[in-house]
Amino acid sequence: MEQLERQMEFLLEIDKQKEIGRQTYLADGSRKEKDAEHAWHMAVMAFLLEDYANEKIDLLKTIKMILLHDVVEIDAGDTYAYDTQGNQTKRIREQKAADRIYGMLPEEQKAEYRALWEEFEAMETPESKFANTLDKVQPVLLNHASGGKSWREHGVKKSQIIERNKKTHEGSEVLWEYIQKLIEENTKKGNIAE
Amino acid sequence: MEQLERQMEFLLEIDKQKEIGRQTYLADGSRKEKDAEHAWHMAVMAFLLEDYANEKIDLLKTIKMILLHDVVEIDAGDTYAYDTQGNQTKRIREQKAADRIYGMLPEEQKAEYRALWEEFEAMETPESKFANTLDKVQPVLLNHASGGKSWREHGVKKSQIIERNKKTHEGSEVLWEYIQKLIEENTKKGNIAE
Repeated sequence: MEQLERQMEFLLEIDKQKEIGRQTYLADGSRKEKDAEHAWHMAVMAFLLEDYANEKIDLLKTIKMILLHDVVEIDAGDTYAYDTQGNQTKRIREQKAADRIYGMLPEEQKAEYRALWEEFEAMETPESKFANTLDKVQPVLLNHASGGKSWREHGVKKSQIIERNKKTHEGSEVLWEYIQKLIEENTKKGNIAE
Repeated sequence: MEQLERQMEFLLEIDKQKEIGRQTYLADGSRKEKDAEHAWHMAVMAFLLEDYANEKIDLLKTIKMILLHDVVEIDAGDTYAYDTQGNQTKRIREQKAADRIYGMLPEEQKAEYRALWEEFEAMETPESKFANTLDKVQPVLLNHASGGKSWREHGVKKSQIIERNKKTHEGSEVLWEYIQKLIEENTKKGNIAE
């Protein structure tokens, strides 16, 4: 039963992801969303939009990767996409977090989930490319729905969004094309700065 | 592109699950959790605890089932486990909700996800038995962690919990055994009424 105890401890530890805030607002603009909600939404997108992946993906692997991709933020916090300073120390902070949090698990699962997170970060496989694309598409979808609330709050420029999304097409050309239209529309509306 | 538009509309519709409240508190007792968070937590449990399922399961199918199992609550609301009146009308309210919400999707996906929800509700297959077990185990785990906050708030009796969990063993004898110990411990502590 020691293995089960460790798994239950891990499940209680990751409960903290329900309180880690992101900068994106919910579709109705009522409040900002949390990491756990974002992961849930992305996981649904993975199977709903699977057909638009550029390459054939192992869907189960992709979903596991997505559901735990932000676990490191329990210790490292959410680094806002357009926070230049924060992004310089992000990698080191997240590696330490991964050591501690995945370290709570039984050996085999620790190795599997840690590897999935490293794979997500490296963005080299079809699964991680698609997962990263969804990670970018989801906030654009929500931002568009909320009238660009988070973009306006941070005065985000179109050039910043384009720079941040320079690899989004690698996971799905179709979804990249879709959000480009939303980015254009929101730039015209003034929700995104020129 | 009409298909993609429908899928995006569905994704924005289910965003509402981030605001549908449940009666269970987060592990730290700070606030009650929401449907989307609960589904995320259960989906992680599905692959973390897969080995404890009584029967071999199709894990991908189980996770899809879990991630969308509470979608109907967008219209029907969360019916608290120990709300006798609410549970009498639950089935009808949820069927109407399923018609509308799954109806937003392209034909093939509409049929697949609606069927997964019906399968979850019927609790006859190995996947739905395991998913339902996780649906019961997750709140017990959180209630235990928060010092029985939700049980105490509602004056929940041990006999009610046992009655509600009469099929929990069907998905996993190991997990049922595990939460029985937690139920005993919390009854001794007075968090659950005798």
